Amino acid sequence: MLKTYQYEQLSAQDIDRLTLRNTDPNNAIQDTVEQIIAQVEQNGDDALRQLALKYDQISLDALYLDEAEIEALAATISRQQQRALEIAFQNIHKFHATQLKKERTIETMPGVTCWREVRPIEKVGLYIPGGSAVLPSTLLMLGVPARIAGCKEIVVCSPPQKDGKVNGFIAYCLKLLQIKKIYLTGGAQAVAAMAYGTESVPRVDKIFGPGNQFVTKAKSLIQSRTQVSIDMPAGPSEVLVIADESANADYIAADLLAQAEHGADSQAVLVSTSSSLIEAVNQALLLQLGELPRAAIAQKAIENSYAICTTDITTALAFSNKYAPEHLIIQSDDWKRLVYGVQNAGSVFLGHLTPESVGDYASGTNHTLPTSGYARSYSGVSVDSFVKKITFQQLSQDGLRQIGSTVEILAELEGLQAHKNAVSIRLKDLES
Amino acid sequence: MLKTYQYEQLSAQDIDRLTLRNTDPNNAIQDTVEQIIAQVEQNGDDALRQLALKYDQISLDALYLDEAEIEALAATISRQQQRALEIAFQNIHKFHATQLKKERTIETMPGVTCWREVRPIEKVGLYIPGGSAVLPSTLLMLGVPARIAGCKEIVVCSPPQKDGKVNGFIAYCLKLLQIKKIYLTGGAQAVAAMAYGTESVPRVDKIFGPGNQFVTKAKSLIQSRTQVSIDMPAGPSEVLVIADESANADYIAADLLAQAEHGADSQAVLVSTSSSLIEAVNQALLLQLGELPRAAIAQKAIENSYAICTTDITTALAFSNKYAPEHLIIQSDDWKRLVYGVQNAGSVFLGHLTPESVGDYASGTNHTLPTSGYARSYSGVSVDSFVKKITFQQLSQDGLRQIGSTVEILAELEGLQAHKNAVSIRLKDLES
Repeated sequence: MLKTYQYEQLSAQDIDRLTLRNTDPNNAIQDTVEQIIAQVEQNGDDALRQLALKYDQISLDALYLDEAEIEALAATISRQQQRALEIAFQNIHKFHATQLKKERTIETMPGVTCWREVRPIEKVGLYIPGGSAVLPSTLLMLGVPARIAGCKEIVVCSPPQKDGKVNGFIAYCLKLLQIKKIYLTGGAQAVAAMAYGTESVPRVDKIFGPGNQFVTKAKSLIQSRTQVSIDMPAGPSEVLVIADESANADYIAADLLAQAEHGADSQAVLVSTSSSLIEAVNQALLLQLGELPRAAIAQKAIENSYAICTTDITTALAFSNKYAPEHLIIQSDDWKRLVYGVQNAGSVFLGHLTPESVGDYASGTNHTLPTSGYARSYSGVSVDSFVKKITFQQLSQDGLRQIGSTVEILAELEGLQAHKNAVSIRLKDLES
Repeated sequence: MLKTYQYEQLSAQDIDRLTLRNTDPNNAIQDTVEQIIAQVEQNGDDALRQLALKYDQISLDALYLDEAEIEALAATISRQQQRALEIAFQNIHKFHATQLKKERTIETMPGVTCWREVRPIEKVGLYIPGGSAVLPSTLLMLGVPARIAGCKEIVVCSPPQKDGKVNGFIAYCLKLLQIKKIYLTGGAQAVAAMAYGTESVPRVDKIFGPGNQFVTKAKSLIQSRTQVSIDMPAGPSEVLVIADESANADYIAADLLAQAEHGADSQAVLVSTSSSLIEAVNQALLLQLGELPRAAIAQKAIENSYAICTTDITTALAFSNKYAPEHLIIQSDDWKRLVYGVQNAGSVFLGHLTPESVGDYASGTNHTLPTSGYARSYSGVSVDSFVKKITFQQLSQDGLRQIGSTVEILAELEGLQAHKNAVSIRLKDLES
């Protein structure tokens, strides 16, 4: 079922084409999103109510759920489900807590002291999708690092379900995160509300979270025209599996399908040193696909995917680095040797017993990751995404004496006399 | 000369207006920039040559200077100037070297091991402006962290000077950075060349550097339509000075003017607890302004600036955090107490003897900083800007047994059966 290529037969152009993602610029929806943004900017809460009626078929009075409502909803899920969410929360918390580090102070010259201080981004907005799939895991993946960073205000938006509420899983995650409100707005309107603020929804400094093409387009527009920043550009989800002779075809097929069920535009790539393994994976795909509730979606994604057969695992890794996958699974006994060679990827799953889905939910790593090749220059979401690092410097008299003439010379050669003056006027006082 | 406001008399709207930057969307230049980008994407080097003729009035054969040419140019500057650039290089290197940190490995559950690994962004592009002012300091500020990060390819673009070369200061910095080529292209065309690649200029993964409005617009367009990322959005430079009774009016005036000489759109804000100090600063501004070669520019920037008088320094700091200045100077004997309260700023200069210009050139901190209020969510450029952090995870048999059911439950409640299967199929083998 997977189109299969022999690596040695691929030209440089072929490889460029295979590593290029299906990037639909979505210009078709631009006008709609522009209108929604303008509507929310101008009419605030009224616009959000109208848009909830139009897109979510729900008439809202209050635009948010309060603590008591969240508490009640959270109580509707089973203890087993609560426990699973708690374990995920704990693991994500443990891993992300390692990311907040103390910065070192350094004297670059005697009396010239420099350091950085970490400060939380004060107000952050988390968008939690709630259309075809409701994703409480995403709330944990964004909420936990925001809490560890110490953000003062965490605004959460999610589209209202048919009953005008959110589901119990989302509510339970809010409880775990000690977030006492959730705003009932979805799509481009939620992004606009957090970017401009409305009577109900506070304006934030940075917006996080995945979403459909309307959400993605709105985030991109907001980024280019306001001072609100976004976590990262988003595209369809993807996995690349590197597998050698030691790999299990059934496991690989299961991992490819876990990716494929996300959406018809997902991509699942297999790069293997064994052509017989690729064949076995194709057979396993056929078998496993038949049993999936989301088989139609997964089938389309698999048609959009491919396998590459390479002569050795180093070549497989080189291709993976060119592709820069969101998720990379290395199913090889030899995974330890390969870690160092991973240059471009979002999150990496090592060995035969580490399926991507453990990272999607509960191993502790973040699942908000760069897609579409952005792993070449972006990291996934982490505590880093919720803080700024501010540089500080302080000069003693000795420090200014040490560095003064250097700054004067450099300011002068750049033709910036006032920059020089700011040093000279102080130096003169020291000398007198 | 500075318009002065009494803080207590300002309404919330006034404060919003005062903290809002003069953000010109520059839609007027959008068409020009679009055309330049399209031209470079389609015609590569030919387009760069045509645009150099049009905008830099120079006919270029080779589009870059090689190592020998750089060497020759670097030898044309004085030993004193070389030494000043070396000291700046060393201090910037010392400070930025502290930013590369080892990440911790953690077992979130027995047998579930997670960690991050830092990898350089492979190919980075540095834009060094060369119009009204040539800025070798910017080359150091971008080149040093790129080298420390370990980027494999560092592409530097700067517009050709009248002689078809770059000046000796830039050349000497290239030497210090061991960069053996510089591409002679400026403006939007340089950004497009690094984003799409031409016959001469390599395509990069991330583009850094300040520039005029054409450069800024090109970076913004590139970010929204390619997989190439950028350092941060850019606006006019700015400083905010917090000063109490202990401050020296002459020093403050010199610092405000150092900012003002950057451009007529620069902003220099003074927030002080002393109205007599504000008055003294105004007098000092008049005196110092007269002697500046760039007085006309500075004068305009000062007209675009203001002072605020507050009753106490805590209120001054609160206003500064709302403004989120690129540069914050705290001229107070009491600076130590105020460090913790700084929430939003790019780089901070503490005490009476730490003018901004030391950080612009040589203290060691970076001068590529968030403007226009972006300091609320962005950090300045650092080694972090040149690396990605990739998450890794590896499960032992015990690890999968520990976490398996949690993942199964969570996948099921999100309706993602194939995610569950990827775990179940492995667990089944462990049990048998």
